[in-house]
Order: sequence, then C-alpha cells, then structure tokens
Amino acid sequence: MSLSPTLKLAKDLISRRSVTPDDAGCQELMMSRLAPLGFTGENLRFGEVDNLWARKGTDGPVLAFAGHTDVVPTGPEQNWAHAPFDPVIKDGYLYGRGAADMKGSLAAFITACERFVANCPNHRGSIALLITSDEEGPAKDGTVKVVETLEARNEKIDWCLIGEPSSTHEVGDVIKNGRRGSLHGYLTVHGIQGHVAYPHLAENPVHAVAPALDALANEFWDNGNDFFPPTTFQITKIQSGTGSNVIPGECLVHFNFRYCTENSAESLEERVVAILDRHKLKYDLQWHLSGRPFLTDKGALVTASQEAIRTVTGRETELSTSGGTSDGRFIAPTGAQVVELGPLNATIHKIDECVKADDLDTLSEIYERILVDLLG
Amino acid sequence: MSLSPTLKLAKDLISRRSVTPDDAGCQELMMSRLAPLGFTGENLRFGEVDNLWARKGTDGPVLAFAGHTDVVPTGPEQNWAHAPFDPVIKDGYLYGRGAADMKGSLAAFITACERFVANCPNHRGSIALLITSDEEGPAKDGTVKVVETLEARNEKIDWCLIGEPSSTHEVGDVIKNGRRGSLHGYLTVHGIQGHVAYPHLAENPVHAVAPALDALANEFWDNGNDFFPPTTFQITKIQSGTGSNVIPGECLVHFNFRYCTENSAESLEERVVAILDRHKLKYDLQWHLSGRPFLTDKGALVTASQEAIRTVTGRETELSTSGGTSDGRFIAPTGAQVVELGPLNATIHKIDECVKADDLDTLSEIYERILVDLLG
Repeated sequence: MSLSPTLKLAKDLISRRSVTPDDAGCQELMMSRLAPLGFTGENLRFGEVDNLWARKGTDGPVLAFAGHTDVVPTGPEQNWAHAPFDPVIKDGYLYGRGAADMKGSLAAFITACERFVANCPNHRGSIALLITSDEEGPAKDGTVKVVETLEARNEKIDWCLIGEPSSTHEVGDVIKNGRRGSLHGYLTVHGIQGHVAYPHLAENPVHAVAPALDALANEFWDNGNDFFPPTTFQITKIQSGTGSNVIPGECLVHFNFRYCTENSAESLEERVVAILDRHKLKYDLQWHLSGRPFLTDKGALVTASQEAIRTVTGRETELSTSGGTSDGRFIAPTGAQVVELGPLNATIHKIDECVKADDLDTLSEIYERILVDLLG
Repeated sequence: MSLSPTLKLAKDLISRRSVTPDDAGCQELMMSRLAPLGFTGENLRFGEVDNLWARKGTDGPVLAFAGHTDVVPTGPEQNWAHAPFDPVIKDGYLYGRGAADMKGSLAAFITACERFVANCPNHRGSIALLITSDEEGPAKDGTVKVVETLEARNEKIDWCLIGEPSSTHEVGDVIKNGRRGSLHGYLTVHGIQGHVAYPHLAENPVHAVAPALDALANEFWDNGNDFFPPTTFQITKIQSGTGSNVIPGECLVHFNFRYCTENSAESLEERVVAILDRHKLKYDLQWHLSGRPFLTDKGALVTASQEAIRTVTGRETELSTSGGTSDGRFIAPTGAQVVELGPLNATIHKIDECVKADDLDTLSEIYERILVDLLG
C-alpha cells in the first residue's frame, strides 16, 4: 500500500526524536517542503529553542498556521507496543510520539499548502507558519518570543489556525475558539513551630489554613458564560511538617485557577486575599499568570473552519473553550482571530499515542478548504 | 575552687560522648561508684542499646531510680559557647550536652546513695537503678525491654523516681506525677489524580480532607480533669501533590494526640473515624500508640518527694502531668508509683544546655532525703 503524502511526511517528522525543547531537524525538513512553494523561512532561535517563521507573500491578510515540533517524553519505551520514534501504521492507525500532538497536523498543513499553491499560485494575502519547539516545555522561548519579534516589526497575523488536537470523537467535531485563563497561586502560611506536647506555645499553620482551603474549594467563582465553562479552583500541592512530634512552622500551598471571562486575574486575586484575610492567616502569596483567557467569536476564520469541516466530512462542529492552555494565549492578544483545529486528543501525552491514518488526510483536506475559502 | 562530688561526677559523665543510642562507658563509670556500696549490676544489652539494672538489697520495698545516659545530638558544635562534651562551670552554671537531661540527675542520685549508704548501711528494702541509653531514640530496646525482663522474673519496683528535668523556675518547684498518653495517626486520603484543566474527571483529596482537618482541629475532646490538662490534637505533617498542573491523587496527613484519662486511645480512634466518615472520605488510617497515660496519685512516693523538697529548699511543689512522654509510661503499668523529679528543663535539647551548679547539689540532697524517708 502506498502512503499518502501527508502520512509519509508525518512519519518522517515522528521519526525525529524531538523531545522538548529539541527540534531535531523537524523545522528544516518542513522548510525543505515549503521553500519550493515560495516560502521564505527564518530560524528564530531563543535560548535552546528553535522557532520557524515561514511566509509566502507580502500582502495581507495573513493566514498563519501555528504549531510545534517538540513532543512530550515517551515514558518507559518498553511499555509502548511500537517504538515511539519508529512510526508504524497498523489496523488503520499511525502510532508514534507526536502522531496526534502534533506532527500529524504539521504534515497535513504542509501538504494542504502544496495542493493549494499548485492550484492557486496567485492567491491573495499571505500564508505563514509559526512553528516552535517549546510548546510542551516552559513556553518561555517559543511562540511568545516569535510574537514579540513580529510585533516589533509590525508584522500582523489576521487568522491563526493552530493544529492542536481539538477533536473528541471524530475529526472536526470540536474546534476551540478560545481558552480559559490560567492563574497560579503560591501561598505560604506562617505559624510558630513547637513541640506537640506544648501546643499553647506554638501556632499550627495547617490548622489555620484548613478552613480557608475549604472555603476556597467551595467558593462560587462564577457561572461561566455562553463561551466559557465556569471558573475552577484546584489545590495542586500542599506541604507542611515532617511528622514525629513537631508542630510545623509553615504550610505551603500551590493552587491554580482555570478562569473564564466572567472573572479576571485581578478579581480572582482580590477574592482569594479576602478569603485568606477573613480567616486571619499570616501569609505570603505570590501569583503567576500563565495566560489570560481569549475568545475568537464568530468571524471569517470560525466560519471558514466550520464550512470546511462540513464540506469535507459532513459534520457540524462544536465550538469549545474547554481544556488546557495552548500557545493561542500568546497570539490572540495581538488581535488575531485564533482557532484550534486538529485530530482527536484521546491518546495525547500517553503511551501508544496514535491517530487514525485517514484522519490526517481528512485534516489536510479541511486545511486546504480553509486556505481556498480565505485566500483563494 | 574544689568541685562537689556531684559536680565532679556530672562532668565525668558529660565528657563521655554518649549520643543516643551510644552509652559511651557512662554505665560502667556509674557501676564503678555503685559496686563499692554493695550494688550488683547487670548489663542488659538489647540490639544496640546498653541498659543497666543495678540493685542493692534483696528485700522489698524497692525504690528504683530511673534514667538514661544517652543524650540528643548537639546540633552545630560551632554554635556552642563551650564544646558540648567538654563540660565547664562558668558563672555558676554547668554547661554541656546532658547537663540537664539528664547526666546531672544521674550524678546527684549516685552521690545521694553514697551518703545514704554510709549513714544507713543496714537500710530496709532495696535501692535500684534502671538506666538505659535509648530514651532519646526510638525507645524500643531500652526501659521497655528491661521492664519486661524484670516482670518475667517477678522482680517488682514499688517506687520509681525518674531523674527527668521536671523543674520550671527553681529546682523542685514542679514534679511530674503522671504523663498524658501519646497516640499517632497516619492518614492517607484517596482521590483521583488528573489535569487541573479537567477537574470533573478528577477528585482532589486536599479539597476533600480540608473540612475534616478543620473539624478535627476544632473538636472538643475533653476538659481534662484534676490531674491532667485537656486532650490536644495536632497535625504534624501534610503532604500532597507536586504542583504544576496536576490534581493530586492522594493526601497524607500525620497527627498526634496528647491525651488525658478522660479519653482512651480507643475512644479517640473511634471519634476520629466518625469525623472522617462524616466527611465521606475514602481513606486508610493507621495508628501507633506511643504511650498510655499514667498517674501516680498521692501516696508514699509523692509525699516523700514533696517533703524532701520542702525540707531541703523550703519550696511547695506543684504536681503536674503536662509535657512530653517519658520512660515512666513503661514503668507505671507494672503498678509502681512513679514520680519525675529533676533539674530545670529550660535548656534541654538546646544549644548551650546547662544547669545551675548549685541545683545539682540541692537535687542530691533531695534524693538523699527521699531515700532516708522511704528506706531509712
């Protein structure tokens, strides 16, 4: 059986061991396919991270495909049915680390460009690719830095199609038109250390913080809205004491909000402080805003995506803002419309990550239809 | 200035580096003083621990002095004003690790015996010493094993005088006529691990346990009684999660009760289980009973101790059952009357541990008066 160009390219990409932040030559391979189409590529290296900004055309509007070549670690390789960097197709599925997240999407977009440019060499506007090898890692030297570079030279993205695996049961059944914000809190509650036999000489910070944590866990933050699920609060870590006969002196608590546009980072911070103060805690509190929420409401990109999916698969698409963060949080603030459209996410980050082989060809057709619709 | 026999012996004992469980020759030094008085010594070695059972006389009643030769570690020796195992007397204080806890008491009891036996060679009953080098450590191969040995051969202690530093402001102002029980709990609360972005697929064990911990910390356990302060509950450790974006799968909590005779280990265990169940937790819970409470109410030993202190110092003594556990928890269940009477405890386990030099001589006189009263 001869493989489709998309599957063949996906296998070539998967066979490169690009564990974050290592690109392992993926971007060079991609450029070797894009350059013949008329793309100009720039390697934007920041720290240990390779980023690729490739563009065909100089006019607007700019439709950019955004994605990443890095993959998460494999876990114990002996637990994989097939070696994670030795991709195989079996029973209709392509297996390998990155098959779904997201080397399959990279291949699908490149072959979509190849057909689109062949059929429509004088398309309007520009096609671009914003590719990083730092999406699965700290995300400090990747998309965020490329976006800064583009903004510094006033280069705008109008429509951004992110190849993240957005689909749930069938390819194209769900696209993400936004994401919740993510806000981390690092709390240290101060008590007074002492001997358990003399509690009147100590102040137990775990006793002090327990009702505040209960209040935070049960707080009604908001109801969500038409676009977003409700804001959620989760404690991700708590640590205090060493056991034996010592009352601890401090209690550390890490927590995270996934929040919708009914709150802001600032409103959540205020409300947390109010709850902690109501419980009369002595504490230090630090915040890290990982990403503000963003939303791409109906518009050319959402409409083109929905119509492309309908044309290719006959499916009606659900718009969703659920799930984790993505690099869309860095691109959306520039004013770009942002949509995430990719294969099924059932196996991402897992042992035996895989994607239905036919889905990548379908995805390539969907991407091509979007190009035709917006730039044809 | 020539040192008193008690201070001289205390310095000899302190200069032996007997960090728990090492006896470092202390018991041999003690026997070299006791043998000439007519004591027969037995070395009862269990595991790594040296124990000494020395006895003069074969009849009852038996007055035993109980204590330990081991000391807690010094901490950073460079932080001591005087080397911890190079005892010095300065400005009226004897400095060194073990000066207060409890080599000073050991010396004071031996010199008391020397004077008592010289004055009253044909005393009634028996004098004994039960000395371990495992009081500051796990306390598994020390007093508890010696008590088992004595019980196996039906050898009884009637009155047990423990040399632990019981005094607060002036030597003899407080003696302990009992101790609270100590009960440890080891709780593991089970949740379901997951990604913070998908809390509906996870169960956060920290959220689940927080209200239960608050309930436990605020529970009214009892009011204490005439002999004991109220039962106290303290969380000594809590640990869950690793931070980042993961909802933890488990939460570990260690806690400890210091409890009086208004509760039992069994009643406390039942009440904890009821509170955990009321909060619908999924959990495992293990218990370790470190010691049941014991009490020596008025009787010959308490009376003799109070009168000896009054005679030597003019002080009225407070009976107390507060503070940590001691080896009395192993001796009291045999039916012995148990009193703890020793120097001030202000510096025990600390850097620059010390004791007022005169207090050791005073203590030796008090011990001698008790011997005279009970066996003279």
